[in-house]
Amino acid sequence: MRKGLIFAVSAPSGAGKTTLCKKVVELLPDLRHSISYTTRPPRVNEVDGVDYHFVSEEMFVKMVERDEFVEWAMVHGNRYGTAEESLKRYEAEGIDVILDIDVQGAGQIRQKLKRGVYIFVLPPFPEELEKRLRGRGTEGDEVIKARLLNAREEIGRIVNYDYIIVNDLFEDAVERLKSIIAAERCRRESVLPQIKEDWGI
Amino acid sequence: MRKGLIFAVSAPSGAGKTTLCKKVVELLPDLRHSISYTTRPPRVNEVDGVDYHFVSEEMFVKMVERDEFVEWAMVHGNRYGTAEESLKRYEAEGIDVILDIDVQGAGQIRQKLKRGVYIFVLPPFPEELEKRLRGRGTEGDEVIKARLLNAREEIGRIVNYDYIIVNDLFEDAVERLKSIIAAERCRRESVLPQIKEDWGI
Repeated sequence: MRKGLIFAVSAPSGAGKTTLCKKVVELLPDLRHSISYTTRPPRVNEVDGVDYHFVSEEMFVKMVERDEFVEWAMVHGNRYGTAEESLKRYEAEGIDVILDIDVQGAGQIRQKLKRGVYIFVLPPFPEELEKRLRGRGTEGDEVIKARLLNAREEIGRIVNYDYIIVNDLFEDAVERLKSIIAAERCRRESVLPQIKEDWGI
Repeated sequence: MRKGLIFAVSAPSGAGKTTLCKKVVELLPDLRHSISYTTRPPRVNEVDGVDYHFVSEEMFVKMVERDEFVEWAMVHGNRYGTAEESLKRYEAEGIDVILDIDVQGAGQIRQKLKRGVYIFVLPPFPEELEKRLRGRGTEGDEVIKARLLNAREEIGRIVNYDYIIVNDLFEDAVERLKSIIAAERCRRESVLPQIKEDWGI
């Protein structure tokens, strides 16, 4: 059986990454969202083992000490992390997973796993990103300026990514992400084990 | 402007490569079939500069001597070749081209150009390939046996290819080839020049 593939998707805030990942998981039945660990309490409707693995602060710290995460981060006082064991299980079972992950997390995973497909999602232009951030109506001027600066910095790190999706039209971005996943499934390393079996070589 | 990409598609005889390439060029308006040089006389309906560049034996030999081909071969007494100049022109103009090329030709191009995307098309099983070859009704038992042996040998050279498309259902194979082309267009190296321009970095 072929190994599952790991797709790590990053983006500056406002690029539409989360919506994009959700849509593609919805469209491709043979692709799953990787489930992270978190110390954040579950919200209404959130299910343990489906949305997140909800764990105590104590448990999370123990996992960090045991070096069980390929990446983890503290966000607004809560910890979030991706367990290496989860990724290895998906891989062994031949399940392709998508990780919705920030640039730092993606960098950590790449360094630690030495495999995976790294995809960066970009809004079309600086102007468009600003418009989207303002459109939310929740952020003030200062925050937006900081976000734009941050985006520019993150773009500088694109060099660590295999693919770039410019999210100009959402439908096109969905098609591009689907194409990347389909293409990676056709990569020689992904297909060859099965072929060798079929042809007895 | 971004550089044009080169897609070289190879397959053992009977894998359906030519039909597949034609279909994808038909479906993607921004993809062209690379036009080869040949010493074969044009058939009815064939147009010089569209189907092939039809040249004399003398001219072809001169081009070989001047090392103008990235690959060339003699097939049934006629010479066929891909001119480096053509590929460079497509590349400079940002035009993506597809080359319908045998394993040896693809190997020569890869060695000479050191770039391009190499795709191998396979029939699903040895049994299926045999059925397809017999289905043509034009080849005898000996020829079919030789073809199968040849296919097995060519599969041994898959290691030189980036992607493998198993042509089980034609429609799926078309989708896979389209996905590979779309994904390669999203590769960091393909997209980054434009992004740097947009973001002024």
